[in-house]
Amino acid sequence: MTASTDGAAGEDVPLAFQDPEYRQAVIDLLGVIAYGEISAFERLAEDAGLAPSLEDKVAIAGMASAEFGKVAGIHARLRQLGADPFAAMAPFRSAIDRFHEHTAPSDWYEGLVKAFVGDGLANDFYREIAAYLDADTRDLVVTSLEDTGHSAFVVDRVRAAIAADHRLGGRLALWGRRLMGEALTQAQRVAAERDAMAALLAGGVDRPGLDLAAIGRMFTRLTERHAERMAELGLAS
Amino acid sequence: MTASTDGAAGEDVPLAFQDPEYRQAVIDLLGVIAYGEISAFERLAEDAGLAPSLEDKVAIAGMASAEFGKVAGIHARLRQLGADPFAAMAPFRSAIDRFHEHTAPSDWYEGLVKAFVGDGLANDFYREIAAYLDADTRDLVVTSLEDTGHSAFVVDRVRAAIAADHRLGGRLALWGRRLMGEALTQAQRVAAERDAMAALLAGGVDRPGLDLAAIGRMFTRLTERHAERMAELGLAS
Repeated sequence: MTASTDGAAGEDVPLAFQDPEYRQAVIDLLGVIAYGEISAFERLAEDAGLAPSLEDKVAIAGMASAEFGKVAGIHARLRQLGADPFAAMAPFRSAIDRFHEHTAPSDWYEGLVKAFVGDGLANDFYREIAAYLDADTRDLVVTSLEDTGHSAFVVDRVRAAIAADHRLGGRLALWGRRLMGEALTQAQRVAAERDAMAALLAGGVDRPGLDLAAIGRMFTRLTERHAERMAELGLAS
Repeated sequence: MTASTDGAAGEDVPLAFQDPEYRQAVIDLLGVIAYGEISAFERLAEDAGLAPSLEDKVAIAGMASAEFGKVAGIHARLRQLGADPFAAMAPFRSAIDRFHEHTAPSDWYEGLVKAFVGDGLANDFYREIAAYLDADTRDLVVTSLEDTGHSAFVVDRVRAAIAADHRLGGRLALWGRRLMGEALTQAQRVAAERDAMAALLAGGVDRPGLDLAAIGRMFTRLTERHAERMAELGLAS
């Protein structure tokens, strides 16, 4: 499955990377995931400052550290592909920063819902894309998306809070819808700007791709999973 | 070396813990270290927001995550001793929070110096105390203090900045002195309030302790190492 390629890329690089467009698409994907994780670290660390107790603070700081802990492996893979991790992340900074600017939580519970829903949505999307990747990259992406076991904490805290205050449930339901809308807006912006990632989804001579109907089905799946997550929190979607 | 004890403490608890004052001193020590690390995580994560580049941000976020990564092991040990980690941390929150309030960095470089100097000072102090502990606790403490390899980054950045701007060197030298003064103030407050920790240093029937002259020598060592760290950064102490 692996073969050496010429150029800057190192050993253990699968044959698929001889297609420069495929290689660029993978670099883009790893770049956006890595920057997304750094960014998630920053926002979760900020949310830790809103925690109502030291127990809550430790739980959310644990989520932040877990996100950051995934960055090193992705950066290592980018270097292995002959790419500079910081150059790979650069094209995605403005879209992700804008997402966070437009969805700054106004309190602890908005932060929790954002961590759970935003993270889940991003992970579902990357997992969908991973299906179109070579096995090594797919494994790396899927591993980097594994739930680090903190989501039970969020579900527990949010459900308890809306049981105690039903108006909070209404506000957080609207908040979940806004998160979804903003995520789609920024994802579309990225897709429009990064040809290689769009081409990855469209497939290649030796790689299966998605036609418009398949892309439609993918969005249906993403929306359904978002609704499931909202329901898990006890929120309407 | 290990023997079972009655009460809430679990297996693998050394004989020394049959002395309730020794047990309380170790719980205090692990509590203050754990809260110090959580607190360091928070401050470093805040400093990440001041980073002048994404590379710098990733480096400082890595330091934050490394600090937080040490908390779980210390909490596990506290539970093993039959203590609640949050109750163990509680007595030290106000002193550590006050230290951070009084030493809030006004820019990126003050944050770097604080991370390097503050962390180094705390680690030296805990390492001194560790000499008076049973072997298992000592190993845990010393491991939790290991440099996670990020300090070279701080030295590099601070030296480059003061080479470019000599007035910055003067300001950061004063800043280092203030960090040391504030750390001593808060450490003294803790020592005055926590009898068990003071008793640990004083020793017991079967444990060596420190007389006043030895405590004086310990402070001399801490001060000397602080000066060495300042010199490493290219700063007068």
